[in-house]
Amino acid sequence: MSGFYRGRRVLVTGGLGFVGSNLALRLVEQGADVLLVDSMLPEYGASLANVAPVADRLRIDTSDVRDRKSLSALVLDQELIFSLAGQISHSESMRDPFTDLDINCTSQLSLLECCRAGNRDAKIVFASTRQLFGRPQYLPVDEQHPLNPVDVNGINKLAAEMYYLLYDRVFGIKSVSLRLTNTYGPRLDLASDVKGFVGIFLRRALRGERIQIYGTGEQKRDFNYVDDVVDALLLAGESDAVNGEVFNLGHPQPATLIEFVETLGRFADFEIEIVPFPEEAKAIDIGDYYADFSKFTRATGWSPKIDLATGIERTLDYFRALGEPV
Amino acid sequence: MSGFYRGRRVLVTGGLGFVGSNLALRLVEQGADVLLVDSMLPEYGASLANVAPVADRLRIDTSDVRDRKSLSALVLDQELIFSLAGQISHSESMRDPFTDLDINCTSQLSLLECCRAGNRDAKIVFASTRQLFGRPQYLPVDEQHPLNPVDVNGINKLAAEMYYLLYDRVFGIKSVSLRLTNTYGPRLDLASDVKGFVGIFLRRALRGERIQIYGTGEQKRDFNYVDDVVDALLLAGESDAVNGEVFNLGHPQPATLIEFVETLGRFADFEIEIVPFPEEAKAIDIGDYYADFSKFTRATGWSPKIDLATGIERTLDYFRALGEPV
Repeated sequence: MSGFYRGRRVLVTGGLGFVGSNLALRLVEQGADVLLVDSMLPEYGASLANVAPVADRLRIDTSDVRDRKSLSALVLDQELIFSLAGQISHSESMRDPFTDLDINCTSQLSLLECCRAGNRDAKIVFASTRQLFGRPQYLPVDEQHPLNPVDVNGINKLAAEMYYLLYDRVFGIKSVSLRLTNTYGPRLDLASDVKGFVGIFLRRALRGERIQIYGTGEQKRDFNYVDDVVDALLLAGESDAVNGEVFNLGHPQPATLIEFVETLGRFADFEIEIVPFPEEAKAIDIGDYYADFSKFTRATGWSPKIDLATGIERTLDYFRALGEPV
Repeated sequence: MSGFYRGRRVLVTGGLGFVGSNLALRLVEQGADVLLVDSMLPEYGASLANVAPVADRLRIDTSDVRDRKSLSALVLDQELIFSLAGQISHSESMRDPFTDLDINCTSQLSLLECCRAGNRDAKIVFASTRQLFGRPQYLPVDEQHPLNPVDVNGINKLAAEMYYLLYDRVFGIKSVSLRLTNTYGPRLDLASDVKGFVGIFLRRALRGERIQIYGTGEQKRDFNYVDDVVDALLLAGESDAVNGEVFNLGHPQPATLIEFVETLGRFADFEIEIVPFPEEAKAIDIGDYYADFSKFTRATGWSPKIDLATGIERTLDYFRALGEPV
């Protein structure tokens, strides 16, 4: 690593959540001056335990990103801001669209306005999502693919991403957006039933419970191990060449849901059941998805280092070593 | 006309504004049961005078569309809803992005949620904007053109449009979105300096004041006379074939800003001055724009009936006949 983060003042919103806490651990390791913001909303997966090993080497603020007044103070003097706080459940965004809007869209505009008012020199890395593409019209999906989100979550994340690019262009607030795909690994929130199948499958595998797959199980996804995503975020924060741009993340070996579950089955014992798609889930399903991430590779040299089997084994090892029921 | 609107319960948000009041007059003429919602915000161009000729044949409610509680009562039992309330100034959206977000995005989600909760049978026609395309990558701009808004206004309108399409698809709330381009005609707000050049040019022409054109004046636009836009809205409300779709409006004879001003000059006396683009305006300028509106023509038979000279002459006649200073 380059030493870029040594001594840097870095703010991470959503810093106690899955990706945020993994990023925080690495930032501390690299010597950054880290401030995490996380309101620890129930059901959002944040946990102080996620950063327990480095708790005395970073600061934590429990403000909510929806509180503009807090945010305006928190951004002051930060050099890097990783904007990871988000409502990530697709189904919840359809049940309670206003909360999704407040967190995923309005709060992102707030962050930008706070920087515009008080810290125009900050560089912001925004965690976007493949969800804003909707159902792929072709594969792999590159950054030119039409944007056609199939749920409220995708629409709000798209608006937020566009704010970041706009403020970079018009107000010179350096921003970059990475479109994350299915991310898994240590500190993933396994308790939730509404944040996608990966956490549910991992929990059931660890418990030895039956895993239900919707549809045929042939839907393809590109699974990123969280360490690879943290690498991508760090590179995006460090590079000037990426400012004002969006980039897909992805994995060179997409896998079907069946393959994901079969890989899980190499390291855990459970039964598999294929069941019809529930209507509500089907309405916002996107079919096959995997990304062309070559634009980000060209810009930063990034590519995933962890294959699915290695990642799954490490993830299961992590949760088993916790010695707690999941 | 088909008689479709006779006796129909129709709600028009922004009903005292420019397009809304022109639509209201026509709906009354066609025998609809019309309820206008308009909070008459200063600077937004709403005026009771706009509907004075039919004031005893429609109802007016001065709720703000940002008031979800009011909205939830207003949508009940409506058969058609024309969602026209909006913040339309591009420059204001950059100065005060939260107000633009509240009105153009959050309130549109509110309207949909109110219908989802209380009136799933309503059909909604949303007035969108060409602004969500940003700077054209090719001309004429069709509905497949990439979406790359260059200001906060375009981002928020895009999110709103996507909500409408989503709720049509997932919740069966029939919605259609028309992307309006530069619209002019009687009842346009001539007082504002922040709602685009058309109103400013018309005001200055009527006053005999010098008209300043930014840049070269060679920027192309497709100008729609408001009666043609009202035709489009009425057809969109009536047609089932358009539900869940977006359509561009436009004009078969685009004109440059110079041509627009020269046409004005056939009916009014004023001087012209070409001045450099102010920095703030340049940052969000979109260059040439004109639309391919053939998708909407195929779906509804619509095409503009009024050419630029006829439209400008009628507009100037309207304002002169008012006998008031503009």
